[in-house]
Amino acid sequence: MAFLKKVKSREVFMGKLSHGGDLLEEITDICRRENIRLGRVEGLGAVQKARLGFYNQQTREYQFLVIDQPLEITKLVGNVSIKDGSPFVHAHITLSDKAGNAYGGHLAPETVVFACECIIEAFDGPIFERKFDETTGLPLWAISE
Amino acid sequence: MAFLKKVKSREVFMGKLSHGGDLLEEITDICRRENIRLGRVEGLGAVQKARLGFYNQQTREYQFLVIDQPLEITKLVGNVSIKDGSPFVHAHITLSDKAGNAYGGHLAPETVVFACECIIEAFDGPIFERKFDETTGLPLWAISE
Amino acid sequence: MAFLKKVKSREVFMGKLSHGGDLLEEITDICRRENIRLGRVEGLGAVQKARLGFYNQQTREYQFLVIDQPLEITKLVGNVSIKDGSPFVHAHITLSDKAGNAYGGHLAPETVVFACECIIEAFDGPIFERKFDETTGLPLWAISE
Repeated sequence: MAFLKKVKSREVFMGKLSHGGDLLEEITDICRRENIRLGRVEGLGAVQKARLGFYNQQTREYQFLVIDQPLEITKLVGNVSIKDGSPFVHAHITLSDKAGNAYGGHLAPETVVFACECIIEAFDGPIFERKFDETTGLPLWAISE
Repeated sequence: MAFLKKVKSREVFMGKLSHGGDLLEEITDICRRENIRLGRVEGLGAVQKARLGFYNQQTREYQFLVIDQPLEITKLVGNVSIKDGSPFVHAHITLSDKAGNAYGGHLAPETVVFACECIIEAFDGPIFERKFDETTGLPLWAISE
Repeated sequence: MAFLKKVKSREVFMGKLSHGGDLLEEITDICRRENIRLGRVEGLGAVQKARLGFYNQQTREYQFLVIDQPLEITKLVGNVSIKDGSPFVHAHITLSDKAGNAYGGHLAPETVVFACECIIEAFDGPIFERKFDETTGLPLWAISE
């Protein structure tokens, strides 16, 4: 069953990430610094290289893939919640190369920012905590009615 | 001519969809249950299989395509408005496979959720009703100045 | 270093762009007409043809690519800020063809709308002005703590 909870916009941050920084780490650091424990993330820009995850639904393991070349970020989308007591960013990314071909996946560490403009919206709301989910093998939100 | 209307954020819902559920149907059900008649939808996650529509601009018919394998949802984006008197979700989806290749299209029924985290924002505003549009053959919003 | 500033939602516009219009120009015109100097943009729909930019990080020049066929817009994402004193839209786009393959890049002029439903959110906040950035060669936001 689907479980959705009401949340409320608290504040919105807009800006740019560091050239050469780790994309996922930069966003996570901002969330921790600003005490964003619930929220949404969006962005666009370019990366110097990307590392993407694909969750193998059968073996229940993430497989990682490195695309070691400059790519446009056509879309970064993510959310912020709590894992192991700290703000945790879960993001997926869509990228494109010089021929216009698109790539994508779960944003993994070691994706290097060339330039990235992003918006982070902090929500007030119930605690969204990630716990191991038996059905999928993933750390999903332990929320219910 | 472009027609845009002012709308106002009423409430925001954040949560997860059901493992094994029909992605489009789940979101539509939430909108009907929460009486969301105008809004926006975003999400990320993974599907067990996808069914995508592509609108043939010449024949004016949707062509459908099934990708019968697990894929990451790198981005789900949609809006909520009224069609035939009820809340109607129009969404497009971008997906990726284990090699990082991206796919996408109009989200059609029979796309099966593996895991999906989504945000639905309800708006207050004028009625956005879909009616047959002569120019495109699509059910577009009948709004004008 | 990452620099993010607090911004505040002022108003939200939702609607459709003109069939046959230039996608980037239409959104830019709306921002100028409504005096949106800071904001975010999102959309979905279809184009008659697309023109995409890819920034060559080595030569520091945009390379452009035309895909001269109907495509679904699986995601349009952008932001609004100031360049040369006027509202300027920076957007990236993800597209898909009839086989479900995805394409993407920096949204360039001469991308022609078939149908496009979009949301533009105007923010109040500090001035985000684009100025030449030495490190990347791009017109990035001149913001700092």
